[in-house]
Formats: sequence, C-alpha cells, structure tokens
Amino acid sequence: MAFPPPNSLPWSPSVFTFLTPYLPPLPSPSTAREDGLISKTSTTPEKPFVTLTYASSLDSMLALQPGVQTVLSGPETKALTHFLRSKHDSILVGVGTVLADDPGLNCRLAGAGGYGNELSEPSAPGELKWQPRPLVLDPRGRWAVAAESKILRLAREGRALAPWVLTDLAFVDDERAELLEGCGGKIIPLASEEAGNFEWEDILQVLSSHGLQSVMVEGGAGVINGLLSAEQQALVDAVIVTIAPTWLGQGGVVVAPERRVDGKGSAVNAASLDKVKWQQMGEDVVVCGVLKK
Amino acid sequence: MAFPPPNSLPWSPSVFTFLTPYLPPLPSPSTAREDGLISKTSTTPEKPFVTLTYASSLDSMLALQPGVQTVLSGPETKALTHFLRSKHDSILVGVGTVLADDPGLNCRLAGAGGYGNELSEPSAPGELKWQPRPLVLDPRGRWAVAAESKILRLAREGRALAPWVLTDLAFVDDERAELLEGCGGKIIPLASEEAGNFEWEDILQVLSSHGLQSVMVEGGAGVINGLLSAEQQALVDAVIVTIAPTWLGQGGVVVAPERRVDGKGSAVNAASLDKVKWQQMGEDVVVCGVLKK
Repeated sequence: MAFPPPNSLPWSPSVFTFLTPYLPPLPSPSTAREDGLISKTSTTPEKPFVTLTYASSLDSMLALQPGVQTVLSGPETKALTHFLRSKHDSILVGVGTVLADDPGLNCRLAGAGGYGNELSEPSAPGELKWQPRPLVLDPRGRWAVAAESKILRLAREGRALAPWVLTDLAFVDDERAELLEGCGGKIIPLASEEAGNFEWEDILQVLSSHGLQSVMVEGGAGVINGLLSAEQQALVDAVIVTIAPTWLGQGGVVVAPERRVDGKGSAVNAASLDKVKWQQMGEDVVVCGVLKK
Repeated sequence: MAFPPPNSLPWSPSVFTFLTPYLPPLPSPSTAREDGLISKTSTTPEKPFVTLTYASSLDSMLALQPGVQTVLSGPETKALTHFLRSKHDSILVGVGTVLADDPGLNCRLAGAGGYGNELSEPSAPGELKWQPRPLVLDPRGRWAVAAESKILRLAREGRALAPWVLTDLAFVDDERAELLEGCGGKIIPLASEEAGNFEWEDILQVLSSHGLQSVMVEGGAGVINGLLSAEQQALVDAVIVTIAPTWLGQGGVVVAPERRVDGKGSAVNAASLDKVKWQQMGEDVVVCGVLKK
C-alpha cells in the first residue's frame, strides 16, 4: 500500500462495529461477478438500499443560515461519515449543498481508492480501491458545473468517481453534459411531475437501473425533510444522525419534517425510529435506527 | 418503610451514577442544622445552583403544538426526571406549562416523601422523606389557582410541597394568595423590569433569599430559550437534556435560543456544551454538560 496522502483519515474498523446492523447488505454472491464487481443483472432490486444521514445541532439545525457551511461534528464523527460512504455505492445530495459547500463527496479513509490505494472503477463497497458515486439532485440545472469544482477535481485526480447529475429533461444542456462526461461523469435526465421536483420513487428507480444498490443521502434540509415526510419515509431503510452538543440558534437551517395529522386532524409524531442505538463519539452522539412503519 | 403507593416509580441509584458530576453540591455541613435541615444562614450563595433540563424530539420540539402535552420520553428517562428532582431544592416551570399540563411537580421515586415515606418539611435534597419546592413563574397572574389543581391536591395529600408562585407586584391578588397559603404555599411578589417579564437575576436572587440552594428548571420553551440566550446562559450551572428518537414535525413547540452574532454581524453558535456525557436510557438518550463560557 502506498503511503496515504496527508488528507486521508486514519480510522479503526472496530470503532464502527455498532453501525453493522444498519448498513446495506453486501452484494450477494450470485450477483457478484468473478472479479468481485457488482453485476447489473435482473436480480438488482427495484430500489437501492436508502440510508438517510445528517449531522445536526441540539436544535436540529444543519447550518447557521442557508448557503453557509457550518462545521458541526468533531473528528470522530467526521471519520464516521467517511466510513459510511465506504459502505455505499453512492452518495446523494441536493444541488443546494453543492452550491453552498463545494463538497468532495468521496471517501477519504486511509486505504480508500486515491487515499493509499489506486482507485479502480467500478468496485464493490467495503473493498479497498473503492469510491462511492457522487449523485447530485439538480432538477433545474442550477449547478454551473465548472472544471475547478472540487468533485470534478477529485475525479480527475483519481480520488473520487465522477458525479452523476439528475436533471429534468427540460434543463439538460450540452455544455454541462460535455464537462461531466470529460471526467467520466454524466447527466441523468429524468422527468419531473411538478416543475423541478422529482418524485423519490422515480429517483430511486433510475438509480437502480444504473446499477446502484445502495445510496447514502447526506442532505441538505430539503432532501432530508422530503424523505422524512409521511409519503416518502417507507423508502428509507436506515437512519443515522449525528448530533453535536451545541445550539445554532433561531434562523438556522432546520431539519423538521412536514406536520402529520391523524384521521381526526390532530397532529401526531411526523416520524419515529425503531431498533434505536445511541453511541457517543467524541463530544457528539450518533443515533441509528429504522423508521417505524 | 410503608408500602409504596402504586404510582411510585421503582428505581435503582446505580443507573444514575453518570449524572453525579452534573448535580448540585450537597449542602455543606456548616450550613446544615443538627436535624439535617438546610439553614438560611449568611453562607447561602447569591444564586442557587441552576440545572436546565428538558426532553425534546430529534427536531428539538417539546410538544406537537402549544398548549398540548406530548409524551416524549420512555419509562427510563421518566425515572431520571424524578431522580433529578430528588437532588434539587426546587423545580421551576413557566405558567404556560402549568396551564397546558397540570403537572404534579413532585418526586415520585419509591421511598420519597409521600411515596413510601412520610413527607417531612423542610428536609434536604438527597434524603428520603424529601420533596422539592414547586416554583411557578407567573408574572401576570395567569394561573387561576384552583383547589383541584394537581399541585395543590398533591400538597394536601402530603405528596408534594405546596407551590410558590412568582408574580409581578401589580398582579398579586388576595384570593390566589389565600388559596395557596391554605395548603402551605405562597405568592412571592417580584418587580418586573418590562411589563410581565422578570429578570433572571432577580428571580434567582429572590429564590436564594428564600433559602433555596438549587433549582431544576424544567420548561417550557420560553423559559428554556430565555436561559440559553447569550445574556442569561452564565447563570446556568448544568444542562441535562433528554432526546427521544422521534420527529414531532413542523408547527411544534421548538427549543432554539435566540440568534447570536459576532462583532462582524455574522451568526455564531448560540450556545455550546462542554464536559459532555451522552448516555442511552431505553430508546432515549440523555446528554449532560455545562455551558461553554
């Protein structure tokens, strides 16, 4: 193994054992090819395994204000995010997160592809040499993809897979498509029901048809609140939330799903976790669970 | 020890050991009288030890909507609340909580005064036979004290101390005062700076002058957000928050302190915890800490 680059994250697998029950299943042997790569056979399920993840403050905020990146979690839970990325085929974020944070959307664990090992594409989650596929939900084509975007730079450097951008048919343009394809990425055109709003079932179906068996949804607030809504939460297989011991204060970017009412019009809990495990990591806590049906 | 009544809470002290570093100090021997009662000597500090406690959802809400009591925490953390009450001289809530919940504001741990032991008044926190003093912040005299209020009923039954109600001088009325005094309680008149809004320093000073060395602040949202504000947080000695693995959804009663800005007008974290300990209890988590200065 080559010497890991200085920005790789040291880690110990045993620290993350508590996450095991909440991780996507490994590709079954019958669908795995001889070279260990995931096959795109007819046994691919209709929907990838969906893990919803985010890091919030005690007052359930992701950021101090919209468009501002806020460092919430400590070093221990930062490594956790990258460990989770190593266990998924893909990472999904809304375009707002890309515009606000210019994120890397790769796995920087020491030993990952590009971080001490050569990146081989495609490979299977959990293997070294591996990187998850960055996915950007950008229905209206708001992301002015640029060669200097961090995601594209990392892809060129062999430290990330190139992004796939889900965009409404009406907003696909050739220039963006060429730039993405130039680094190995692409635009995935998708029809939206309402203007600029994809249906989550359509999103997951198209990801599945592209061979992705698991997706880690990382944000932002619109994406998270959407998946926690009464209509969508059945699509979520696992939830992993990090909470930092701080209050960002009123005016921040809030995670709170839509209000839910019962048959009599009374408010009821919008969503609840089952099979709950809380684990302190550094100063933060991580809560894992599955959504109650 | 008499047989505990059916609504007493079974408990095991060892479960709560993790709370020890965050609890108020025991009364010092020099201030304790021979009979073990707390004295009101000149060694009483200017301000009682203030513990801020609340139970919220993952989306930092106390209730589904204003005025509606919402059961959030499980049996394990319910016992924790009563354990904390057993370690404080007094419990403080805003009048909104009294109007919405008609709370008992006593300690129902098996063995507490009225729950397997006779209630002797006054006695010291941590002792059996003990109950904390219920305190209601009611600047405008909104609480129409009634004989059938749960707090008064419990006091008459010897299962709670009678409440002290902090009310603005302009809103003290004889009828309420008589009803409270009839069960051993009283109105504490206090001047408010703005109409109907006490200063926290004044509140704590008057509590201290009444011999209270510790106060557990339980809510509601207005009281909690006030104490977490930049101006007041130095008054808080310990914070103990229970989080239930559920999202109540938009429109609920939110804990989020006032926005805080730095010298350049940029938003910064409103409050943060230091010396943090997270502990899973049942499905919930409890976080303890002290506010960073």
